[in-house]
Amino acid sequence: MRKTKDETMPELRKDPVVGRWVIIATERARRPGNIVDTGDGPYDEKEKECLFCKSQQQALYTTNDLTVIAYQNSFLKTDNEFKRTSCGLYEVSNAFGAHEVIIESKEHISNMADLDTDHIKDVFATYADRMKELESNKDLKYVLAYKNYGETAGSRSFAHARSHIIATPVLPIRAKEKFWGTKEYYDENGSCIYCDLIKQELKNQKRIVMETEHFLVVAPFAARFMFELLILPKKHHCNYVDGIEGFEEELARIIKTLLQKYKIGVNDPAYNYMIQTAPFYKNAQDDWKWKNVEHDFHWHIELMPRLTRIAGFEKGTGFYICSIPPELSAEYLRGVNINGTV
Amino acid sequence: MRKTKDETMPELRKDPVVGRWVIIATERARRPGNIVDTGDGPYDEKEKECLFCKSQQQALYTTNDLTVIAYQNSFLKTDNEFKRTSCGLYEVSNAFGAHEVIIESKEHISNMADLDTDHIKDVFATYADRMKELESNKDLKYVLAYKNYGETAGSRSFAHARSHIIATPVLPIRAKEKFWGTKEYYDENGSCIYCDLIKQELKNQKRIVMETEHFLVVAPFAARFMFELLILPKKHHCNYVDGIEGFEEELARIIKTLLQKYKIGVNDPAYNYMIQTAPFYKNAQDDWKWKNVEHDFHWHIELMPRLTRIAGFEKGTGFYICSIPPELSAEYLRGVNINGTV
Repeated sequence: MRKTKDETMPELRKDPVVGRWVIIATERARRPGNIVDTGDGPYDEKEKECLFCKSQQQALYTTNDLTVIAYQNSFLKTDNEFKRTSCGLYEVSNAFGAHEVIIESKEHISNMADLDTDHIKDVFATYADRMKELESNKDLKYVLAYKNYGETAGSRSFAHARSHIIATPVLPIRAKEKFWGTKEYYDENGSCIYCDLIKQELKNQKRIVMETEHFLVVAPFAARFMFELLILPKKHHCNYVDGIEGFEEELARIIKTLLQKYKIGVNDPAYNYMIQTAPFYKNAQDDWKWKNVEHDFHWHIELMPRLTRIAGFEKGTGFYICSIPPELSAEYLRGVNINGTV
Repeated sequence: MRKTKDETMPELRKDPVVGRWVIIATERARRPGNIVDTGDGPYDEKEKECLFCKSQQQALYTTNDLTVIAYQNSFLKTDNEFKRTSCGLYEVSNAFGAHEVIIESKEHISNMADLDTDHIKDVFATYADRMKELESNKDLKYVLAYKNYGETAGSRSFAHARSHIIATPVLPIRAKEKFWGTKEYYDENGSCIYCDLIKQELKNQKRIVMETEHFLVVAPFAARFMFELLILPKKHHCNYVDGIEGFEEELARIIKTLLQKYKIGVNDPAYNYMIQTAPFYKNAQDDWKWKNVEHDFHWHIELMPRLTRIAGFEKGTGFYICSIPPELSAEYLRGVNINGTV
């Protein structure tokens, strides 16, 4: 597979039918005989020593507890200018973007469930700081902070606790789905769908796992995964950076509690969480779609253990099979006793 | 986790934000200590004998070569009447639908690549026959025929060659994405996006893997997976049942060729294929969205080896990382010599 000059640079390309952006990553291109699972990055390959334990160099940001680094092996870089072009049906850009890794602890601890609340607070405050910094790059339009814990969640079980922040110059398809859904609801009903959902869940009670002064945790009505959870701030705010201010500690206590419930009640499962926040709408003010995003969208966190394999049916249709009804997931998780661990 | 009466029936539920339907499958509900990978069905669990080798009972359909059975362990059944209701923000229905398994061979052969062309022709003709039959149930609105080969594709490596047909009373989210994409394009341009895409690919040539009288096989411009392929019928037809008529053998030769190229050139990889056909629009004539589907949509087949793991970034955003540019995938696959095997 000979590389010609214009084939060696990674690109973002947009599927003309569904609007899904993908990264075409030429650097990893190999002959088929050499194709390997590219996994979560080069850190894990050897498993002989943890590179995160010593990787304090190149830090973008540090606190007493944690370090943020720019992920050097990412395809996404902000070194070059963002350039978007089209050719007939096809849209393409250079692989512009940012990928940062939050190394959550100086000690070699795997599971965030085992960090103390102050420490978790620091991680969630850091997400906000980094998002704020990334938004200052006017070419970035979207950000996602997320965590993979354990192999079925896309990490390795041995690994050092860490999470990721990705920022892109275009809107990923899953984000587009969410933003359009909330926008459509607001246009039809004149209210935020998540605000209405909080009211309905509080009235119904059956899917509530925990409630604090400013947050509600429910098992979503149409859960994709058993024990999937939705952490909803009661106060409407479209973005995490402003919405979390002053509530970092309350959120950290919730996260600690839920992760301990998973660990004790669901046998230390692999899990993912994702902070769903509004796109960087201030960087796209000319775009009518984001005119109302402050009202349309409501930031929240999705948290899900990854206990089952996703097979062909789910893959082909997006039709997930959830093996435990969310009402039973909620009832079970409410009952998991974590006394003394939080 | 005690079951109450109304919690024991599986349901279809719709996510109120993105419109994703999921199956809430109560029969598999277990206490967390018993949670296991539910995998591809109960056939594989023991691996001591292949149930497909002897499972000729309960056949819905047979030919000399193959047998179609109703998948007894599926959550989807057409036994009851389809009932859809809503409660506040939430929509729900009973788990109405069909799931059939095509046991592709009476012999214990794993990979369709090793069946002869006539035999593959029989499988693809059977998809059309079964889809036609399923469309006669007026409550079914959507059908997908697909195959999982190998573990990373959602099957087991030892398994007997088989594929699946699923029919549902609602439109799955991935299907909705595709149909809306083609509809939007037609509304804007007055032409079918796939017809235009065929023209552009024929002009460009770089992504073409093979071309026959009635079909074009390309590596898609915004491929999600290395060596991902798109099999496009040159003649516009929105649905597979009518579109394939008379061309079953030509398609079977293409499938055999591509699967052999995968097997020889890409080290016998796990793979999926999915036949993307129009929804059962005749069963939804009152719905304005399907008024123009005969023009909007163009049936096609997606075929993809599954060589890499999908990690948190893809999961959270739908932003896939494709490690080999489709132009190089196409060039490589064109060059794989399968002389004597087709």
